[in-house]
Amino acid sequence: MAEEWTGPGVDLHLELDPSGGRRDALERALRDAVRSGRLGPGAVVPSTRALAAQLGVSRGTVTAAYDQLIAEGYLTARQGAATRVAEIRSTGLPSAEPGKPAPGGPVPRKPVPEKPSPAPPGGPVWAGSWATAGTVAHDLRPGRPDLGTFPASAWLRSTRRVLTTAGPEAHALSDPRGRPELRDALAGYLRRVRGVDADPGRIVITSGYAQGLGLLARVLGDAGTSAVAMEEPGHPYHRMIVARAGLRAAPLPVDGLGARTDLPVDAGAVVLTPAHQYPSGATLAPDRRRAAAAWARDTGGLVVEDDYDGEFRYDRQPVGSLQGTAPGHVVYAGTASKTLAPALRLAWLVLPAALVEPVAEAKRLADAHTPSLGQLVLADLITGHAYDRHVRAARLRYRRRRDELVGALRRWAPHVRVLGVAAGLHALVLLPDGGPGEDEIMARAAARGLALQPLGEFWQRPDGRPQGLVVGYSTPLRSGYHAALDALCSVLRYKA
Amino acid sequence: MAEEWTGPGVDLHLELDPSGGRRDALERALRDAVRSGRLGPGAVVPSTRALAAQLGVSRGTVTAAYDQLIAEGYLTARQGAATRVAEIRSTGLPSAEPGKPAPGGPVPRKPVPEKPSPAPPGGPVWAGSWATAGTVAHDLRPGRPDLGTFPASAWLRSTRRVLTTAGPEAHALSDPRGRPELRDALAGYLRRVRGVDADPGRIVITSGYAQGLGLLARVLGDAGTSAVAMEEPGHPYHRMIVARAGLRAAPLPVDGLGARTDLPVDAGAVVLTPAHQYPSGATLAPDRRRAAAAWARDTGGLVVEDDYDGEFRYDRQPVGSLQGTAPGHVVYAGTASKTLAPALRLAWLVLPAALVEPVAEAKRLADAHTPSLGQLVLADLITGHAYDRHVRAARLRYRRRRDELVGALRRWAPHVRVLGVAAGLHALVLLPDGGPGEDEIMARAAARGLALQPLGEFWQRPDGRPQGLVVGYSTPLRSGYHAALDALCSVLRYKA
Repeated sequence: MAEEWTGPGVDLHLELDPSGGRRDALERALRDAVRSGRLGPGAVVPSTRALAAQLGVSRGTVTAAYDQLIAEGYLTARQGAATRVAEIRSTGLPSAEPGKPAPGGPVPRKPVPEKPSPAPPGGPVWAGSWATAGTVAHDLRPGRPDLGTFPASAWLRSTRRVLTTAGPEAHALSDPRGRPELRDALAGYLRRVRGVDADPGRIVITSGYAQGLGLLARVLGDAGTSAVAMEEPGHPYHRMIVARAGLRAAPLPVDGLGARTDLPVDAGAVVLTPAHQYPSGATLAPDRRRAAAAWARDTGGLVVEDDYDGEFRYDRQPVGSLQGTAPGHVVYAGTASKTLAPALRLAWLVLPAALVEPVAEAKRLADAHTPSLGQLVLADLITGHAYDRHVRAARLRYRRRRDELVGALRRWAPHVRVLGVAAGLHALVLLPDGGPGEDEIMARAAARGLALQPLGEFWQRPDGRPQGLVVGYSTPLRSGYHAALDALCSVLRYKA
Repeated sequence: MAEEWTGPGVDLHLELDPSGGRRDALERALRDAVRSGRLGPGAVVPSTRALAAQLGVSRGTVTAAYDQLIAEGYLTARQGAATRVAEIRSTGLPSAEPGKPAPGGPVPRKPVPEKPSPAPPGGPVWAGSWATAGTVAHDLRPGRPDLGTFPASAWLRSTRRVLTTAGPEAHALSDPRGRPELRDALAGYLRRVRGVDADPGRIVITSGYAQGLGLLARVLGDAGTSAVAMEEPGHPYHRMIVARAGLRAAPLPVDGLGARTDLPVDAGAVVLTPAHQYPSGATLAPDRRRAAAAWARDTGGLVVEDDYDGEFRYDRQPVGSLQGTAPGHVVYAGTASKTLAPALRLAWLVLPAALVEPVAEAKRLADAHTPSLGQLVLADLITGHAYDRHVRAARLRYRRRRDELVGALRRWAPHVRVLGVAAGLHALVLLPDGGPGEDEIMARAAARGLALQPLGEFWQRPDGRPQGLVVGYSTPLRSGYHAALDALCSVLRYKA
């Protein structure tokens, strides 16, 4: 379907993809128009009423599409003014003043003396997660999906298909970027589902995001970068990986609008979790998204977009990738660790063209390429749509769990604040002043065999940080979820 | 079965494992006795006649076991003297004088001016091998097994078993050393088949040997090592990996007795291919094996034993691992790349105890761990003996191919020398003086669509090296093998 669209300031031929819903098609067409430059910075877009009439769709459809593109940073809207294509700006934003908490963000508190945490129950923590639940009765630590729903039958069916149809070359060493079958499948999937500007030639399959981040850090270091800005709070494992590559991890503060990309960034690259900040759960505000892209364009810096749980957004349309707004300056990083299982070690980078060769060479020298069979099976799952079906079913299950967590805490621990639950697989639970702090809650939890992760572990410089817990509500198996919630509510009571 | 064994200088209780043949059991018992120190350095072992009578086995069995342990460096024999347990020595050996070629080794030649080789036919060469055979009619490059015999049915059966029996924890992040199921299976397999002193706690599963070498180089560099001695000729990809870790690759000359471990080694570590030197095909001589172990003991240096094709020995019992003679000083590195397929990216390191933690931590920061599913499937193949059956069948097939290659060259290209064919999947074909050199042969081969790898690519410092080809006779599919041999013999004629 092709539509002529003539609004004030723009004269644009919009190609609406007939597959899928009209709102999706409109969003895609608008994104493409902005990306390609056909809709230039500052251009006024038509009123929702005019465009709806022109395209023969409801006004609500256009409003929803505009809202989505505003959230993604393609468009801007100000009270009483026309909606426009976003300008590229590198200046700070008025939305959050330094030192003042933004709405919904962690509440700065007085410095808390650091004490060693009591040893948490459970097995060894590997890579920010853990191996066995040993003495753990209930596990609400973040970082992994419900492994009881791994689609073993679908995986096995695809494995059979791959092994019976693949020629001998499938078992040979191949392109360090990964199997072309998977890169083709992912390019289509990521364009469709996450608004990524992807083509197979710019994708590198890595053995988990951890490896992808390490390869990028290594390549950046080779090119002279000495520091990478990392969200604070953020994933300590990721900071270790960057440090292992010889780079400094410079803390980038986070508030309720996500990472403070409006502040000056003293680093050659910045790693962000725009869709769902880890661990605060904030969604990066539209102005901050634009500021990050503008910073990269203006300084030649690189943004790494860690989209670790971008498939899981519950209350509205997912926010599209930041990469889609500035594909020449942003690396998009996705993973099957949350959608399928972390033990698969399957992740992908969508790179600016100039980074493809150095990252592929770093990958080749690291381990030649990621194992082929897993890649071919995942490609088969994606092209056969089993992957989409699994993700949709998982989204419904996790949303139900999220609702149950929020409901239980509201009822049994109304003094805590629950943040970051619009998306993803974890919630930030802030502990109020005057009540028990992290150490006390962790000790209570250990006594009940409840594994939790204190917020303090995510800080590089913990002075003045709030006290809280990062609760992974996808971790317990379905059969143990309610008991885990009971245990959580119990240890969060004011008096143990 | 337990036997008392009292010979001159030793008084030893030998436990012969009743499973398997008596010769294997005797070899294992002797190795264990030397390793444990019950048979000390210099101890005289009984005559073959006395021991045969004592144990109730044939004298030939004892002779074969002694020969094997002499080849592996546990025992020494000199003309007219008793066989003894090897002394630990760090001095040079008289068996090969510096600058003088040893019997059977490459013949030094006058320096050859380096010219750029003509572009070989075929797809891109990844990691020292290649992706697609594109314009290649015949492929005799080394480095990969016959991929047409990948045991897809067995792999699929084991995948089904793993997926239907494994609990959810199989999909969780786990120990950076790898799955315990695979480390258990490998420890038994490597003890039995390669005489490795292995226990599961000291094994780290890596995504190919390339990754294992890179992790080791990184850990050595962290500990202050600045250079690693690498065999010359050797695998250029491996030198690149060591260089990538910031270490210098110091050339270690190779002759017909293997790497010159009898020469002073100016490096903190040495990487060897004792079973089948790559690419010359030499087996490291017993004295050189002992010299390498003694060097490591005396200097605190580390030997990395790259046992890339140790399962494939055709004309006699395989030479056991060097690691078995000095497990505290040698890293044993094995792989499924030659026994199954390189695209699986499954390899393993058996480490001295002190290296386990730093290598596991390096692995954790590299990619958390190697994908679990492939590990679990390989463990199932090993414990169910499908792996052994596959390797035995492959050995027979490759031996037949080896015989056909040697026969064809003897008949149609009698002027070339064929070396290194006692084991492995490749042969070294040396070109005689006065005939066409590598460039000429490569040009002829390109014209016929025959992909070959010239020996020159394996040299770091190619002055004075011999001219030759490294012929991988496992690469063509079965159906194309004879045509590939015809093409090879044709391009090797004196006149094209």
